[in-house]
Amino acid sequence: MRDFDESNITTAVLDRFDGTPDPRLKAVMQGLVRHLHAFVREVEPSFGEWRQAIEYLTRTGQMCSDVRQEFILLSDTLGVSMLVDAINHRQPAGATQTTVLGPFYVQDAPEVANGSDIAGGAEGEPLLVEGTVSAAGGGPLAGALVEVWHSDADGYYDVQKPEPDAHALRARLRTDAEGRFRFWSIMPRFYPIPDDGPVGEMLAATNRHPNRPAHVHFMISFPGYDTLVTHVFAADSPYLDSDAVFGVKTSLISHFARETPGTAPDGREMDRPWRRLNYDFGLKKTAVGTGARRVA
Amino acid sequence: MRDFDESNITTAVLDRFDGTPDPRLKAVMQGLVRHLHAFVREVEPSFGEWRQAIEYLTRTGQMCSDVRQEFILLSDTLGVSMLVDAINHRQPAGATQTTVLGPFYVQDAPEVANGSDIAGGAEGEPLLVEGTVSAAGGGPLAGALVEVWHSDADGYYDVQKPEPDAHALRARLRTDAEGRFRFWSIMPRFYPIPDDGPVGEMLAATNRHPNRPAHVHFMISFPGYDTLVTHVFAADSPYLDSDAVFGVKTSLISHFARETPGTAPDGREMDRPWRRLNYDFGLKKTAVGTGARRVA
Ligand SMILES: [Fe+2]
Ligand SMILES: [Fe+2]
Repeated sequence: MRDFDESNITTAVLDRFDGTPDPRLKAVMQGLVRHLHAFVREVEPSFGEWRQAIEYLTRTGQMCSDVRQEFILLSDTLGVSMLVDAINHRQPAGATQTTVLGPFYVQDAPEVANGSDIAGGAEGEPLLVEGTVSAAGGGPLAGALVEVWHSDADGYYDVQKPEPDAHALRARLRTDAEGRFRFWSIMPRFYPIPDDGPVGEMLAATNRHPNRPAHVHFMISFPGYDTLVTHVFAADSPYLDSDAVFGVKTSLISHFARETPGTAPDGREMDRPWRRLNYDFGLKKTAVGTGARRVA
Repeated sequence: MRDFDESNITTAVLDRFDGTPDPRLKAVMQGLVRHLHAFVREVEPSFGEWRQAIEYLTRTGQMCSDVRQEFILLSDTLGVSMLVDAINHRQPAGATQTTVLGPFYVQDAPEVANGSDIAGGAEGEPLLVEGTVSAAGGGPLAGALVEVWHSDADGYYDVQKPEPDAHALRARLRTDAEGRFRFWSIMPRFYPIPDDGPVGEMLAATNRHPNRPAHVHFMISFPGYDTLVTHVFAADSPYLDSDAVFGVKTSLISHFARETPGTAPDGREMDRPWRRLNYDFGLKKTAVGTGARRVA
């Protein structure tokens, strides 16, 4: 086939993917071609605009490093991450709602004992986080892996610091026999997503602010259950109604209670006001028979 | 607005772009969100598939360098480049048809006199290229800028060589008072687009070959006319019916005539068989009043 023009190019490209051996890949590629071509036909980009798009995507890829994932930020700020999340988490009763992973997750955070302080010396309002992990609609899960990470009092993650190897405000811990976990840290602050790259340009050009309300990230896993990726948002934070990445759900907003100086529940003596978050998580049993499509 | 779910997330993201000051950018971003979300809703990617897509785009950006443009290759192999081309070149009678730019254009090619040999020492069948540049449906254009580039006898461009700074098989020249241009080079060969990166993976996974039929690239510009970006394809090349980037148009296929040893038209003594291409180009007058959207 030759002489591709506006009337036949999309069919020609779809046909070219007919020989794809893997049926899932074939469906994804043909879907991509149909929707991408429909977008191009609608907006009718000039050649200059097409080059701008190529350069934008190139800069986005080149901004990525071990500690920066600009394409995840782009997916987040276009609402794609939350849509993928919603599609994959049609949740049963008792299962905690999910939200975006975000670009600051690190796989090899230090494993710590329950009750540890994970602040790593960061200054801020002390925060005690306690909670449980259960099967949705069922009993506690002992030995569940709880991964946590959050911003500091200025809104920065450890990986955004000049020495990104020093883990702080980030840890892995295990629930005890009753499914409980507990750790000390400091209050996270709302923060702008990194906006010195292509995503920041997009937000500025469209009059959007880059901020996310204050939150603590959780990733909780247990064999036989879907890995839960979520945050708990602070009820008194700004930006709850305009999160730059569309991540807020009402059920994930919690009061980070204000406590007065004195003895904390674990016996720690507090000489100044501190905060306390209590949140219980429910994990959804992995559906049998849906295989790889459901696994995180 | 909170509690984004499958039913309301697309509307929420579209609303977030309502404040975009530039109306064109607003239309492009809202169109992108609608089509991108429709794609996600159709294919319902798993979280793992979403991560694969993020990583694929990241690797594509990181493959790009001064001499490699992997996102243009991706656009080309998904037929997007040819669709953008078709949309921007609804051509009047007498105007040469257009095709993809491709990733091997270089802005600062050496300017040479008409009649020069641009092979830069590359071995191959000698090729004389002659032609004219005219206004579509009108007279010759004197002093038009003709930029040419093509592959060598093994299918490689100069920029793919270990010393990519040495220009070969690439030049800029000007038409004479009768709108004519002429240069010597060697026959280009069909070639695979660079397939050692993310685009090559995509082609392999979908059983597509990476080859393009043999061709010479032309970019021809003259004040007051749309810059013409096109190729002339060799009629005896393989892959004319399955160009990996969908670039072939019948009107752009030409016979690269086989000539016997003897005296060439410019007096050059040929001691072996050589090839001869004659192709006349017509440029389209730039439409008045459509401004930047039409400019390459
Ligand atoms: Fe975060
Ligand atoms: Fe080429």
